Amino acid sequence: MAVSGVIHAGQLVTLAGPSRPRVGTEMCELGIIEDGAFVTEGGVITWVGKTDDFPSDTATIDAEGCLVMPGFVDAHTHPVFAGSRVDDFEMRCRGATYSEVAAAGGGIMSTVAKTRAASEKELLISAIQHVNWMISCGTTTIEAKSGYGLSLESELTMLRVIGKLAKETGVTVVPTFLGAHGFPPEYKGREAEYVALITNEMLPAVAAEGLAVNCDIFCEKGYFSCDQAREILVAAKNLGLGLKVHADQLSLSGGAQLAAELGAVTADHLEQTDANGIAAMKAAGVIPVLLPGSVFGLGLDKYPDARGMIDAGLPVVIATDFNPGSSPTPSIPMAMFLACTKMKMTPAECVTASTVNAAYSLGLGDLVGSLEVGKRADFVVYDCKDYRELANFFGFSQAKGVYTKGNLRYGQQ
Amino acid sequence: MAVSGVIHAGQLVTLAGPSRPRVGTEMCELGIIEDGAFVTEGGVITWVGKTDDFPSDTATIDAEGCLVMPGFVDAHTHPVFAGSRVDDFEMRCRGATYSEVAAAGGGIMSTVAKTRAASEKELLISAIQHVNWMISCGTTTIEAKSGYGLSLESELTMLRVIGKLAKETGVTVVPTFLGAHGFPPEYKGREAEYVALITNEMLPAVAAEGLAVNCDIFCEKGYFSCDQAREILVAAKNLGLGLKVHADQLSLSGGAQLAAELGAVTADHLEQTDANGIAAMKAAGVIPVLLPGSVFGLGLDKYPDARGMIDAGLPVVIATDFNPGSSPTPSIPMAMFLACTKMKMTPAECVTASTVNAAYSLGLGDLVGSLEVGKRADFVVYDCKDYRELANFFGFSQAKGVYTKGNLRYGQQ
Repeated sequence: MAVSGVIHAGQLVTLAGPSRPRVGTEMCELGIIEDGAFVTEGGVITWVGKTDDFPSDTATIDAEGCLVMPGFVDAHTHPVFAGSRVDDFEMRCRGATYSEVAAAGGGIMSTVAKTRAASEKELLISAIQHVNWMISCGTTTIEAKSGYGLSLESELTMLRVIGKLAKETGVTVVPTFLGAHGFPPEYKGREAEYVALITNEMLPAVAAEGLAVNCDIFCEKGYFSCDQAREILVAAKNLGLGLKVHADQLSLSGGAQLAAELGAVTADHLEQTDANGIAAMKAAGVIPVLLPGSVFGLGLDKYPDARGMIDAGLPVVIATDFNPGSSPTPSIPMAMFLACTKMKMTPAECVTASTVNAAYSLGLGDLVGSLEVGKRADFVVYDCKDYRELANFFGFSQAKGVYTKGNLRYGQQ
Repeated sequence: MAVSGVIHAGQLVTLAGPSRPRVGTEMCELGIIEDGAFVTEGGVITWVGKTDDFPSDTATIDAEGCLVMPGFVDAHTHPVFAGSRVDDFEMRCRGATYSEVAAAGGGIMSTVAKTRAASEKELLISAIQHVNWMISCGTTTIEAKSGYGLSLESELTMLRVIGKLAKETGVTVVPTFLGAHGFPPEYKGREAEYVALITNEMLPAVAAEGLAVNCDIFCEKGYFSCDQAREILVAAKNLGLGLKVHADQLSLSGGAQLAAELGAVTADHLEQTDANGIAAMKAAGVIPVLLPGSVFGLGLDKYPDARGMIDAGLPVVIATDFNPGSSPTPSIPMAMFLACTKMKMTPAECVTASTVNAAYSLGLGDLVGSLEVGKRADFVVYDCKDYRELANFFGFSQAKGVYTKGNLRYGQQ
């Protein structure tokens, strides 16, 4: 049964503010109400204020002074895949390089092979497990990408699985088609044919079935060139899909500029993006989605220039990039710890980046990402008193109770 | 009610083997039973084998193919303190150095001030919270240090709190006196007097009340010199306490050599320890306790030479160093991920290092650290199938059910 209200939130982090992504010093304004409370009806927030002014005597939850925040919005995840990469991981522990791992049959193509071989039911079961991991860390909305199928049938299967995740887990899900995650092995030497398959067959099928809101692409040396990416993204745009770009992750390949040129909603990763790329994103209104977990997971040192982006007035988003290879973490607080310690963001900026800004990056700014009247009652009660503790402690979850539309999804009431 | 048995553990990681710490390639031998099972009576394991041979029909838990392992033994923690370091953390995010943080009233001495001001009851409540965080990550035995009191009364209070943690949380607790964690501010310029206070008053009081099993010391430039450390440790040894040394963490200060000279049970940290230190530890039978979380938490790059130690035949232990400043993580799996990626240990070595080897380092090798007949029924059921997934995924807990002496302490049955 949905709860009807919360009282005695020691810190109620509302993120109340303007109905748009937050930039610059706005990212530090969390709208904290001390000893806060709110009322929910039908899964929607109908009142927010101080506990003393609580307008009802039917509050279901007494937070007893604990921190209460909106659920995290994870704007970049790959939750649907079969198997794991533990063999790769063990090889890397023993000193193997990434190319040695790939040569031994590992890497992303091993996940593609396993995912293609799995049934839709098997993929759904494992995806539910992965989303439940995210929920246990306080996440209540996710963007979810395909991209381990790389064939018409398998990509559609992945998107159908993604389409079932909201009902199965309670989280809000925004589906993204990522058929251009890499070139499948059977198209080796015939890359243009795979690009044509995406534009001529996959994208129309995805659009016809209404399976995705966005189209994403991995624009990188050895993956999709800017020209190939442009061809695919223009086709997607013509079908009404929003655009996303895995941009400038391993090299300064022009992904941020391409995202700006095409009016993409977000450019993601951006580890190598320079001032020109930042300026282009700013001019075009592209939202940067930063993924420190994958830098850390890959054992690399160069994190994206978050401070440069915030100083430029970009509404920075932080996400997990959850996937079995480069970023095997479902935890937004873990991404926050890395953003704080490696990218010199403040805990408050991280909270804005993973709630309200992330919600706007997914086109859900009017529904989730803050605790305001009219928004979904997606919230988390934590086992701490101060929001900064979420970023300061790491490696586990401080969530005590995670709720979507007022219904308990993890922990206890 | 205590469970009477477990069946259908897809991987039952028993760590069965010789009754001593494991060295060299033994660290990779986990004694895994596929579709394993065990029986418990009175909180103790009385039978271990294959599910097909399960000698009873009263198994309480069907693990349904999931991974089951002994609970982790965290051999180095600081779970008793008041307040947090979120102000320091935020300053560091904004670019402050450690000395700037200390100059602003932060750092370890801010925790000392808050801990001295807290009541025993307040300290107990927060310590229980910290231990419950550890339990949620699969830990069932801890070593727990004092060291934020730095006065006779406050150190005794901390140790009395530690003495209550086993009963309050269900974990097995080994108490360590760490009055020599740093020099308290009121002894500035009178350091010899503080050393005398420890040897003449604190240690005899700790021993008289039976409050600690071990005595530990922070041997480091600016903290306790080798000569001061020797004076304190010799006094502790004469009172029958086991010896531990925070050694060679920030500089090669000779801590490992000192530990060897005095026959310490463990030398901890060892980031700067060289081949001479490793040889000395090996010759003297000192167990190295490595703490990758604190290297990571401090934003440093130099991890201890785990491979050199394993190659030298030392029974390496991995622990969290949980504390509010340098290593704010209660998670052994997080330490395992860092040990794998930064120290090139294998997942199997990490499991041995944080279970059976850790148990022997605490003098509990006959009681905990493996799932063998006669050992405590301290075990964890995980939401995965392969032990390597614990180290590969990071930032959250995969524990579904954590049991001490057969009783559920976290999660659900």
